[in-house]
Amino acid sequence: MQNLEEKTLSSRRVYEGKILNLRVDQVLLPNGKEGSREVVEFSQAVAVVALTDDDKVLLVSQYRYPVGEVLREIPAGKMDPQESPEVCALRELKEETGYAAASLVKLNEFYTTPGFTNELMHVFLAQNLTKGEQSPDEDEFVQVESVSLQEAIEMIFAGKIRDAKSIAGLLAAHYHLKRV
Amino acid sequence: MQNLEEKTLSSRRVYEGKILNLRVDQVLLPNGKEGSREVVEFSQAVAVVALTDDDKVLLVSQYRYPVGEVLREIPAGKMDPQESPEVCALRELKEETGYAAASLVKLNEFYTTPGFTNELMHVFLAQNLTKGEQSPDEDEFVQVESVSLQEAIEMIFAGKIRDAKSIAGLLAAHYHLKRV
Repeated sequence: MQNLEEKTLSSRRVYEGKILNLRVDQVLLPNGKEGSREVVEFSQAVAVVALTDDDKVLLVSQYRYPVGEVLREIPAGKMDPQESPEVCALRELKEETGYAAASLVKLNEFYTTPGFTNELMHVFLAQNLTKGEQSPDEDEFVQVESVSLQEAIEMIFAGKIRDAKSIAGLLAAHYHLKRV
Repeated sequence: MQNLEEKTLSSRRVYEGKILNLRVDQVLLPNGKEGSREVVEFSQAVAVVALTDDDKVLLVSQYRYPVGEVLREIPAGKMDPQESPEVCALRELKEETGYAAASLVKLNEFYTTPGFTNELMHVFLAQNLTKGEQSPDEDEFVQVESVSLQEAIEMIFAGKIRDAKSIAGLLAAHYHLKRV
């Protein structure tokens, strides 16, 4: 197998911010030439396909400033330092929807866009839910709805769910639940 | 329905680079308070689930510098200015795998990580493939393999495919092909 690795020659930190950092690295390519790589450093994150006892999934709508649209997504959020993916999944689900989950199964994990960021997303299926109160972050404004998993899948193909983690999570949950 | 929109108050350009730009905006939140939003500006992109006549999908492995790993992905790439998603899909498929496709169906589109970037990904199913020569970009080093679609789905759940667009695309293709 051909060596595909790229080696770091130097690194310049361009920006250190609230939720992300940016650096530009000079690298040695597999063919011996040099190139530059722009890297957005981001924390790990989780997303949750939350299935209620009457077989509905919880979707949250929120304004996504970078894209200038309200998007319909599955509950999700960044992991706090030292927080495990499981603890973060339960916390974000509770904050955004008010639901607590007694069962949590990992569906998959993925890099959201590995060409320019290290953001890693862990996706869970949450079941055995109990309703409580929402408590979103102070700069977070979300609306919750519940639809059947089948309706959610149809929303993907109708262009009504246009968020990568939500599509990957809902289709994975659909496949997983058909198999078990 | 509650107003979820955030209004731009001011914008500061932090970085303009080769594949991305970074800006930090001051915004007015729905509750009347102010907040800041870090936005990575990125071009639109495409990804292709390419299915050969013997029902195998083409996967490309490449070193992803931001995550420091070789990842197995479906063929993908950034759209050139003025290029349509369809033209880009056929171009990237040809460059990375050597295959030309006579049939192209759009599966879905999504924002890869709308919390901090506007990158929009268009995902296609390509069929009726004809083999030719690869011609990757000069700083792009990829290895191509073909596996059955079912094997590719199993790779997702076994953690051997860990890339959002690939997971969203392969599961969408699987669902789409079962339905038609």
